[in-house]
Amino acid sequence: MLGDEIVKRINQLGAISESSEHLARIFLSPEHRVAADLIMSWMRDAGMAANLDAIGNVCGRYEGDRPGLPCLMLGSHFDTVRDAGKWDGPLGVITAIACVAELNRRGVRLPFAIEVVGFADEEGVRFSSTLLGSRAIAGTFDPGVFEARDANGLSMREAMLQFGLDPARVTAAARKRGELHAYVELHIEQGPVLEQQNLPVGVVTAISGATRLAATLSGMAGHAGTVPMALRRDALAGAAECIVAVEQFCKAGGAGLVGTVGIINAMPGAGNVIPGRASLTLDIRAPEDRHRNEAVAAIRQRIEGIAKRRGLALQIDVTHENRTVPCAPWLKAQMAEAVAVEGYGVFELPSGAGHDGMAMIDIADVCMLFVRCRGGISHNPAEHVELADADAGARVLLRFIENFRPALHSS
Amino acid sequence: MLGDEIVKRINQLGAISESSEHLARIFLSPEHRVAADLIMSWMRDAGMAANLDAIGNVCGRYEGDRPGLPCLMLGSHFDTVRDAGKWDGPLGVITAIACVAELNRRGVRLPFAIEVVGFADEEGVRFSSTLLGSRAIAGTFDPGVFEARDANGLSMREAMLQFGLDPARVTAAARKRGELHAYVELHIEQGPVLEQQNLPVGVVTAISGATRLAATLSGMAGHAGTVPMALRRDALAGAAECIVAVEQFCKAGGAGLVGTVGIINAMPGAGNVIPGRASLTLDIRAPEDRHRNEAVAAIRQRIEGIAKRRGLALQIDVTHENRTVPCAPWLKAQMAEAVAVEGYGVFELPSGAGHDGMAMIDIADVCMLFVRCRGGISHNPAEHVELADADAGARVLLRFIENFRPALHSS
Repeated sequence: MLGDEIVKRINQLGAISESSEHLARIFLSPEHRVAADLIMSWMRDAGMAANLDAIGNVCGRYEGDRPGLPCLMLGSHFDTVRDAGKWDGPLGVITAIACVAELNRRGVRLPFAIEVVGFADEEGVRFSSTLLGSRAIAGTFDPGVFEARDANGLSMREAMLQFGLDPARVTAAARKRGELHAYVELHIEQGPVLEQQNLPVGVVTAISGATRLAATLSGMAGHAGTVPMALRRDALAGAAECIVAVEQFCKAGGAGLVGTVGIINAMPGAGNVIPGRASLTLDIRAPEDRHRNEAVAAIRQRIEGIAKRRGLALQIDVTHENRTVPCAPWLKAQMAEAVAVEGYGVFELPSGAGHDGMAMIDIADVCMLFVRCRGGISHNPAEHVELADADAGARVLLRFIENFRPALHSS
Repeated sequence: MLGDEIVKRINQLGAISESSEHLARIFLSPEHRVAADLIMSWMRDAGMAANLDAIGNVCGRYEGDRPGLPCLMLGSHFDTVRDAGKWDGPLGVITAIACVAELNRRGVRLPFAIEVVGFADEEGVRFSSTLLGSRAIAGTFDPGVFEARDANGLSMREAMLQFGLDPARVTAAARKRGELHAYVELHIEQGPVLEQQNLPVGVVTAISGATRLAATLSGMAGHAGTVPMALRRDALAGAAECIVAVEQFCKAGGAGLVGTVGIINAMPGAGNVIPGRASLTLDIRAPEDRHRNEAVAAIRQRIEGIAKRRGLALQIDVTHENRTVPCAPWLKAQMAEAVAVEGYGVFELPSGAGHDGMAMIDIADVCMLFVRCRGGISHNPAEHVELADADAGARVLLRFIENFRPALHSS
């Protein structure tokens, strides 16, 4: 039963926080250091060599049946959002270490090395730039971020120096494609699908790409009593029709397409005034870029049609865009096999949230295993994983490692 | 041509403001006093006896063919909102005085007296309670408002004393039903209907009653990427469907029904979070109470249906309600006759905005004449009436007065 120790360590790591009131473990903070030291001690207990890399990631290595072999890299992140749950990130790091510890207990050496990485910054809370740890390892770290400043005005460069890291050496963290057979991450689902499917684990098909848009509709403000319905150019009524259209389109769009309006504003914003202007955000994601791009184009067209028919001026802009990161079919197949061997139904689902694989894809094929979390709740202190599910995830990951066969094209 | 002097006086009164930057003439302010003195001087020039009543209204009286006859009461208000236009209110007071001045010039005395009232507070800016002037005359002033405080913490009681009025004597402003044949008000439309009809004036059918509601829909917040469309309980998507339904219902509802959502809020309000809660305001008006009440009931039912189907909790409450004030058919008929005699097409329309007739109905039959205003814009410095339209309004009102025949039931 690997689950017991995993949950114990989740709680230990969850106690390392900038505040006792809420959980927040931020990049390059004193808590970052304390957590890294604890994780490295677990790595060493599991028979791994462990070190802190040039950007603050913790890296553990368990050699294969001879030294210096390319590795299967496992990992996740150990930074958190503010007022976080304990599972988002740490579960992947702790489970990977538990699997290596089990192999080490049994004296098993495999025909490849295993590395476990705890990424120092995935959430991007401090410098408003995500995936800093995995980008450094993938060799795609953007040096412009050194100049980004945190809420106290400290630059990332200054924060690294304070922490004891040399910004000039950050490229030393970069790994080469030939060093890795694959990057595999176990993570909580952060959504309700596995719970609804009544399954402890699921095989991820892709990390969905995302397009974010901002739209503003402009009509004519007016008195709520004096302007007849037929003479109105109500910007909010137009925006409402757009929101309904986005929902309808994505519901019918199938295959993991999701569309969300999270922010709406109507101006001037008085109960007895017809809104003359309304602005909204749009977040569109799909597990295939072509699917997402087609959906974005179709949704834009619908919004343009609604605005035109209502005589509303429309401003619509893309504010953010992320490519889809597909999980490699050969890795998915091996993960599905591990799930089946452990006795669970094989279920595939896309990841709508971002993960370190989005950076790791640049140097390795990527695969992810999701573990069910209660109510799909994440980024919240109520985030929870059942002991049995943590154990199931560990057993599947261990089976995957033991049976892992590198792809022909990998070195 | 009465229009020239009317526009000149609109500009004179429009210069009396708490600030040279914007127009604001607030109840019981120094500008109230200056404006009242100016209006009373115009009344006296028109051959009327003029005085300030117990709440600060200006009252002018032009006797009929013998002294002490019941009066036809004309009027409107001379207070303004902040950053107001010059026409909303003053046009009715100034036009009524211009009509009396014309009769006086010609030496005409009618078989009834004419009174012109400039109401001191219709907008309710200072004490958040509207129609204070007309309520005092109708004998329905609520003494509770004496304790209401303005933005500086001054109560209405204190403000009256400072102004030189005795709060204890406010009931002396009240008039009796037998003293009035009718209350007739000329006012700018504050909407775009007459402009669209290409007509300078319109006969008002009723001052529409209004129901205001506040609704909150509660679903489940979630990650914009991880919750599939089918598993969402998106409160904003539900609110959007409600907004579209309100608009569709009111568009099809005919006969002056209008429905407006002026305020919307989605929580937590982040681009990548499905809104768990959404709140909105609803303003429903119609020129018949039964029509409005049926519409409110039907709209509530639709909103309840939308919430139920989507699994959203719904809280919906009436926050404000005003009865409809119908214009008296016998007065409407005489006003329509005056419009026709002056050579304009007779067009009837409801008033979606509130007016002093809402208070005056308690002591008299009520009638209103609307004058076209540019673009339907009001409560805005851009508020504008063409000289020709101001003149047309005055000619129709003068014709109405000259031909006025009291109803059989009035004394």
